[in-house]
Amino acid sequence: MRSIEFCFDYISPYAYLSWTQARSLGERQGVEVIPRPLLFAGLLSAHGTRGPAEVPAKKQYMLRDVLRKAHALGVDIEFPPAHPFNPLLALRVTCAAPNLDAQRKLIDGLFSAAWREQRALDDVATVREVVERANLDANALLEAAASDRVKATLRSHTEEAIAQGIFGVPTWVADGELFWGVDSHPLLEAHLEGRAELDADKVARWLSRPSSASRKNTP
Amino acid sequence: MRSIEFCFDYISPYAYLSWTQARSLGERQGVEVIPRPLLFAGLLSAHGTRGPAEVPAKKQYMLRDVLRKAHALGVDIEFPPAHPFNPLLALRVTCAAPNLDAQRKLIDGLFSAAWREQRALDDVATVREVVERANLDANALLEAAASDRVKATLRSHTEEAIAQGIFGVPTWVADGELFWGVDSHPLLEAHLEGRAELDADKVARWLSRPSSASRKNTP
Repeated sequence: MRSIEFCFDYISPYAYLSWTQARSLGERQGVEVIPRPLLFAGLLSAHGTRGPAEVPAKKQYMLRDVLRKAHALGVDIEFPPAHPFNPLLALRVTCAAPNLDAQRKLIDGLFSAAWREQRALDDVATVREVVERANLDANALLEAAASDRVKATLRSHTEEAIAQGIFGVPTWVADGELFWGVDSHPLLEAHLEGRAELDADKVARWLSRPSSASRKNTP
Repeated sequence: MRSIEFCFDYISPYAYLSWTQARSLGERQGVEVIPRPLLFAGLLSAHGTRGPAEVPAKKQYMLRDVLRKAHALGVDIEFPPAHPFNPLLALRVTCAAPNLDAQRKLIDGLFSAAWREQRALDDVATVREVVERANLDANALLEAAASDRVKATLRSHTEEAIAQGIFGVPTWVADGELFWGVDSHPLLEAHLEGRAELDADKVARWLSRPSSASRKNTP
């Protein structure tokens, strides 16, 4: 079965919105969706950029945009008690899932805790409760989440994403092509259906063009 | 007649794509589209951010994304001979247009020169030719473009945009609400049709939430 990757961090409301569409998208396209938890902050550091929550005007815009998109998708959304929050524990527990089915249940539960139930994902009690609700062994998963093996898994997901040119979440990867943001779903589906033409020579030609202006004080 | 603003800079291929849809969008919605030329670099400096062309991974992504979106919209696009380029002359000439109809013709011609005909907009000969093709007085417009009055107009567009929280181009403004990017057209149209609910109390509540984590080395 053809598979596509869903690269995400719980910190992003757009990743939550995108994940709510993942099952129906996968079924419609006949593809398996493979989740890739990663640390968004790691992408920002690698590319020297700031996340939308770190730029006041972008944060103001994002909240309104997220509410509008949720309404358009018919998805319930609430803001977590604090944001940005530290997503490391939730990401590591997700990496520690014993199989793909358990992992999907954890992702459903963790996204829902943060973005519907207004729970703090940096609180181990919240994460434990989500794991238990998914009928998984909470002690075993929390212990695994603290292991060097699982920490290394999350790090390698983040490093691989950086190497692939991923700079934001959510990013879908299909046949090596990136599709960033919940707005990219139509183009992702067009790609999967063979309707998204991309002239690789044109891209290469464009990339080779010089710049003729630059700003003096780029942050 | 109800009016909406189209805030843009010729430097952005997304602004070009968005402008190709402006006429049909305005007619469909029965609104007048008022162009607001502004300096994207001024937005970046004000918000301390970097544009997509200033972040290599984003530039790589943007070129592919722009090509895919152009294909989906059925719009022809080519990359300018150099990019980023200095858009000041083109923006000022646009601000100097004697009326709205002339301004729209200039915008059509300048976007087309940069993003279809692969012409350099920082070359006065290109701008002169576009003005002449629009049957406008090139000497008068180029002289006006160099005047303090027109320079101040462009500056004030940019400053007003910053004050409104605009951080990118294109941004549409309808009833004080911002819609960023060509991806935002469906939400803009939903807003104009009264279908885009937005719970202002929820936004205010969300904005009041604290953060519980921050990165050490934000650029």
